[in-house]
Amino acid sequence: MKRLKSTPREDGFRMPGEFEKHAGTYILWPQRPDNWRYGGKPAQKVFVEVANIIAKYEPMTMLVNQDQYVNARNMLGPNIRVVEMSNNDSWVRDSGPSFVVDDKGNVRGIDWGFNAYGGLVEGIYYPWDFDDLLGGKICDLEWVDTYDASEFILEGGSIHVDGDGTCITTEECLLAPDRNPSMSKEEVEEYLKKYLNVEKVLWIPRGVYMDEDTNGHVDNMCNFVRPGEVVLAWTDDVNDPQYERSVEAYEYLSNVTDAKGRKLIIHKLNCPSPLIITEEESGGVDSVEGTLPRKPGDRMAGSYVNYYTGNGFIALPIFNDPNDEKAIKLLQELYPDRKIETVYAREILLGGGNIHCITQQVPLGK
Amino acid sequence: MKRLKSTPREDGFRMPGEFEKHAGTYILWPQRPDNWRYGGKPAQKVFVEVANIIAKYEPMTMLVNQDQYVNARNMLGPNIRVVEMSNNDSWVRDSGPSFVVDDKGNVRGIDWGFNAYGGLVEGIYYPWDFDDLLGGKICDLEWVDTYDASEFILEGGSIHVDGDGTCITTEECLLAPDRNPSMSKEEVEEYLKKYLNVEKVLWIPRGVYMDEDTNGHVDNMCNFVRPGEVVLAWTDDVNDPQYERSVEAYEYLSNVTDAKGRKLIIHKLNCPSPLIITEEESGGVDSVEGTLPRKPGDRMAGSYVNYYTGNGFIALPIFNDPNDEKAIKLLQELYPDRKIETVYAREILLGGGNIHCITQQVPLGK
Repeated sequence: MKRLKSTPREDGFRMPGEFEKHAGTYILWPQRPDNWRYGGKPAQKVFVEVANIIAKYEPMTMLVNQDQYVNARNMLGPNIRVVEMSNNDSWVRDSGPSFVVDDKGNVRGIDWGFNAYGGLVEGIYYPWDFDDLLGGKICDLEWVDTYDASEFILEGGSIHVDGDGTCITTEECLLAPDRNPSMSKEEVEEYLKKYLNVEKVLWIPRGVYMDEDTNGHVDNMCNFVRPGEVVLAWTDDVNDPQYERSVEAYEYLSNVTDAKGRKLIIHKLNCPSPLIITEEESGGVDSVEGTLPRKPGDRMAGSYVNYYTGNGFIALPIFNDPNDEKAIKLLQELYPDRKIETVYAREILLGGGNIHCITQQVPLGK
Repeated sequence: MKRLKSTPREDGFRMPGEFEKHAGTYILWPQRPDNWRYGGKPAQKVFVEVANIIAKYEPMTMLVNQDQYVNARNMLGPNIRVVEMSNNDSWVRDSGPSFVVDDKGNVRGIDWGFNAYGGLVEGIYYPWDFDDLLGGKICDLEWVDTYDASEFILEGGSIHVDGDGTCITTEECLLAPDRNPSMSKEEVEEYLKKYLNVEKVLWIPRGVYMDEDTNGHVDNMCNFVRPGEVVLAWTDDVNDPQYERSVEAYEYLSNVTDAKGRKLIIHKLNCPSPLIITEEESGGVDSVEGTLPRKPGDRMAGSYVNYYTGNGFIALPIFNDPNDEKAIKLLQELYPDRKIETVYAREILLGGGNIHCITQQVPLGK
């Protein structure tokens, strides 16, 4: 399909909120043994669970490397489409395209630059050549033209939009020196405005504690429930290092307005208790130079905010934690028309992300 | 998508004629250097030409191995979709699925067994593992359920249907001992009837002279223009070994009726003059044990019958031969509503087939 050198703003396209209607969802199959323990076999089971849930509600495509195609096809339900697509790791939220729509119902993609969360400076795996091609490849697969934003390093998980003029992100990630070091904050903001077609960018200072892989992606920290209303990763434990991050974000969000001049309604979504990588979990991961190690004793960046909003459902990670029930209850109140589908997702978190990170929606056009 | 153990006949699906409306076309990108001279570079240019023609008329998808993805994407027009799909060689007519439709407009695929034209006995390349998976993969890509006919070895180029109850094939190929040696002619015929949902199978004895790769595929020899009407590869040169094959087929076809009881109208389509592989052409092909050699001095199975019928067009191979004009003229008369698009196709023929062999249509359902 065409590679466009214009911008969505110029052409009247905008990125819709994730809560708007989808045409379908993509997931990438996990397998790399230096990130996913035991050859990815436990993670694959959980990815299957997530995919099978999504496939109940909308068209679901699993993208998979050649050498895992048959296994993935055999493990996944028959209503899931399985398509070969070479990849380096399984975070299609970050390596895949973002999609935009216009008022006529046309859909296009944005192909961002991707450098595995920091390139040769702080990237978490090497190489990332296949992942960098995913944006264009997925757009081709969808028969949609693609805005070429490959000069700009951006992971989809580092932004959220309300579809109504506002983007939310974190300074920790978007201003990290290993993303777009030659650009000022104003230049980054202008780039986002042109490509997402938003009028305002909200900058939370930092993401979730220990979300070091991603440099504090916003999608683990804060999400739009609808325009004017967000959930925020929270803890009431003043001794938890997460506390100051949540308070800092809360204060910031309490003192801004969105593009439409609204004050934000902020819902505190309590995090699970600290989740620590065990010896056994760490021991199943290949040790490879240049890949971020998964060390025993390290705390993981567990958060319920990393849920996926789909047609008629929320796919919510749970952790066998007392706060699971609170999260379910709050989200059911916030999304009365969607079924809350829970997945025990520690296995995804062990790989460095969660359900939102492994999914990518295609909005419904016409 | 689902793997179906029932048959199209049981479910009310039939294979439509190629001349019926298409939803789109697939081609596989050529590259293997032991079949395509000079690393496939000359062939790739011709495949691009064919794909660009088709894309003017219907959605066109190019399937390509990982290592050629970027090159293919860069060489092909922007209106062509390029999708990764691992393959051993580029004959999607033969390794891909056949599609069937029902009266409600539903589309399904048939995933035949594939053994590279003869398996370990006389197959022309090894291994063929990726090609054998193409049927299911392309059906998945199309979101259609698949009839599992993998127990039955069949290349799509070895059959043609009129969409109206009749299939035409060759004994040379379908009864070859390296396809389905345990099945009698009657059993093969019954299998075709069940899966293509036809009532009658017409058996031309042999295909085109020197079509040894495929054991005489019918798609180089004879094609349905419409129900009751065929073109037949022909020569008037009694000294050409093709002559007795064409006469034999003509006599057979003159003495049968189709499923609807019609006598066939037979149009003789004169072949190009004998086309011989040159030293230079042969010299560009890697020499590899287990792959059919392309020897200088060998005659190729040149035929105009190996054209592709698409929405509003015919993609016709030509050879810089005096008979080119005759072929164009005849086909324009036979297809008054389609544009005859010609491609100088010696390069495809050097690989062992022609335009029909490298294409696969998806019929239009609802």
